[in-house]
Amino acid sequence: MRAAAPLVHGATGSVTRALVADGLLAAGARPMLTESEQEAPTLVTVADALLVNLGSLSGDGMAGLLPTARAAVEHGVPWVLDPTAVGLAPVRTPLAHELLALGPTVLRGNASEVITLTGGSGRGRGADSTLGPDAAAKAARALARSSGCVVAVSGPVDLVTDGRQVVRIASGSPRLTRVTGTGCLLGALTAAHLPGVAPFVAAVAATALLTVASDRVGPMGPGSFKVALVDALDAVTGDEVAAEVDLSWT
Amino acid sequence: MRAAAPLVHGATGSVTRALVADGLLAAGARPMLTESEQEAPTLVTVADALLVNLGSLSGDGMAGLLPTARAAVEHGVPWVLDPTAVGLAPVRTPLAHELLALGPTVLRGNASEVITLTGGSGRGRGADSTLGPDAAAKAARALARSSGCVVAVSGPVDLVTDGRQVVRIASGSPRLTRVTGTGCLLGALTAAHLPGVAPFVAAVAATALLTVASDRVGPMGPGSFKVALVDALDAVTGDEVAAEVDLSWT
Amino acid sequence: MRAAAPLVHGATGSVTRALVADGLLAAGARPMLTESEQEAPTLVTVADALLVNLGSLSGDGMAGLLPTARAAVEHGVPWVLDPTAVGLAPVRTPLAHELLALGPTVLRGNASEVITLTGGSGRGRGADSTLGPDAAAKAARALARSSGCVVAVSGPVDLVTDGRQVVRIASGSPRLTRVTGTGCLLGALTAAHLPGVAPFVAAVAATALLTVASDRVGPMGPGSFKVALVDALDAVTGDEVAAEVDLSWT
Repeated sequence: MRAAAPLVHGATGSVTRALVADGLLAAGARPMLTESEQEAPTLVTVADALLVNLGSLSGDGMAGLLPTARAAVEHGVPWVLDPTAVGLAPVRTPLAHELLALGPTVLRGNASEVITLTGGSGRGRGADSTLGPDAAAKAARALARSSGCVVAVSGPVDLVTDGRQVVRIASGSPRLTRVTGTGCLLGALTAAHLPGVAPFVAAVAATALLTVASDRVGPMGPGSFKVALVDALDAVTGDEVAAEVDLSWT
Repeated sequence: MRAAAPLVHGATGSVTRALVADGLLAAGARPMLTESEQEAPTLVTVADALLVNLGSLSGDGMAGLLPTARAAVEHGVPWVLDPTAVGLAPVRTPLAHELLALGPTVLRGNASEVITLTGGSGRGRGADSTLGPDAAAKAARALARSSGCVVAVSGPVDLVTDGRQVVRIASGSPRLTRVTGTGCLLGALTAAHLPGVAPFVAAVAATALLTVASDRVGPMGPGSFKVALVDALDAVTGDEVAAEVDLSWT
Repeated sequence: MRAAAPLVHGATGSVTRALVADGLLAAGARPMLTESEQEAPTLVTVADALLVNLGSLSGDGMAGLLPTARAAVEHGVPWVLDPTAVGLAPVRTPLAHELLALGPTVLRGNASEVITLTGGSGRGRGADSTLGPDAAAKAARALARSSGCVVAVSGPVDLVTDGRQVVRIASGSPRLTRVTGTGCLLGALTAAHLPGVAPFVAAVAATALLTVASDRVGPMGPGSFKVALVDALDAVTGDEVAAEVDLSWT
């Protein structure tokens, strides 16, 4: 991924935009975070990948999501859908279903969000899930099969499935949940890995990168952790990620 | 507050949103920073507290403030009004008065903003006040009496009043004024302390938390200070805040 | 500049707003980053300088740019135009030309953006230029002559021209390109230097400040660099900048 320096277009919330941009740059991608309805559908056509994240967008940003995703599909740009806080925010549920119907390459969310999209009650409250990823494994597999996309579920243990095989990735630092935007960043890193790579492999590689980078950060407070995480994304090599990641297949 | 992990809905400017979110997380609360008119009035109904901050919002975010505050009032969600730069920005003055008429639980501002809301000339220029908090003590007391809410005024010495008693809190690091968003963060921390606590006590506790945390950060530049402040909010305990805060009553 | 503590109004993208605000504060200016069409044209009238940056604005923010720039011109507020990603984003090219026609005090961009504004093909892809600043020297000089403003071009070597003289400023840390927002920050620092100073001198001084500050940061990852850059902007003195900057005239 570093060699290709993919241009990643991200529609992502204003709270996390700086971390997403810096994390993409540190990992070797080039971010382009434009949300407006006026610009995003055009800009995405020159991008190598797209992230569509529902978190904390403005009304203008929300209005741009469907046209941007449609433009990505038309131009063959692979894309990640991150349905942040779906279920909790009423306006997001129909929007997430409409986006899902457009066929994202990868859907990435927490257990609550994935269960909500399969029609269950995700019990989501705020952007954090109250369910572990194992509770969502069944829903993720079903969603991957019905929608035809790879589904990645984050939590204490992450999992990635294409509907048949399931990979679990352990070992991410628990401090990833103590700073805002690490879920959004994972969606963005997933998008950055998509060009030229099988979606299942890209989702696993992005998750492995973030978890290994987070584990390399020593003990420190959450403010320092956020800074050191960007440093670690810059410093870690692909070989190191492959050597240090803790994967299991089922 | 940490034990309850309150869900805090914040309508706050895009400049400071990441610090507000990270500071809330570090202090043990869960942030939900959605500004849009389409979503915020619904989302606030599941929150434990609300922050309404006028600073640097988009037009869309501005349009959502009144419906969101009304929804909070209807659902008994306690809320903080932070009238950032009122007086300076013409559109904010009538909006701040409309919000004040809805009855915030706590109004938090600097001296200039509080004086402006009592009808005086706050001489505000930019988001910083050119008046000390003592000059605002009289205005704060009058505003607390007329509006029926607790008024918290920040500055070199902070004060909190319910119209009768006044608490002054000293000892915040002067570097709090050298990074953006610490005022917004204080408003958010105040909101986070409101659930189940008397508003006067919550405003004092939040101010004490921020000032004690800031004083624990050693000498360093403003970039490092902002990071270390989040670390300190995570590390400091309630007992330590109570032991280290410098309060005086009148 | 520190002594005057100028109030700098910035319309700049949400991705970089926190760094721009913290960098301005560290350098001694006071930031006021309000983008909305409803507020910005009024607020700019009390500012000492204005930055208009096209990067990652909302539709609302885009709509406010022309009225805000017009208000600056009417009230004699000096201003910087930063046409981020012009050429790449179709809607920005006519907008940038309209803004340029209003007569910015300084135009600041990378080589690709400056060449695009002179009618050439800047080959821009994302916010980064693929052209060195020397390739843009001719275009910058032509643009400065035709538009009557000072033109500053950033890249591995920066250059500033008023159409006749050209100053090149070397020595900025290459890590300036590894974090988001340093270009936006340079535009903001340029605006901060404008009040009471010749535009050519202000553009050179701002570029010198950022490059010297960046060179003072030791080897570290990009997350840490961003934090240390703000510290360095706070710590470095004008005399140190003058002593350490590497300038050449032609």
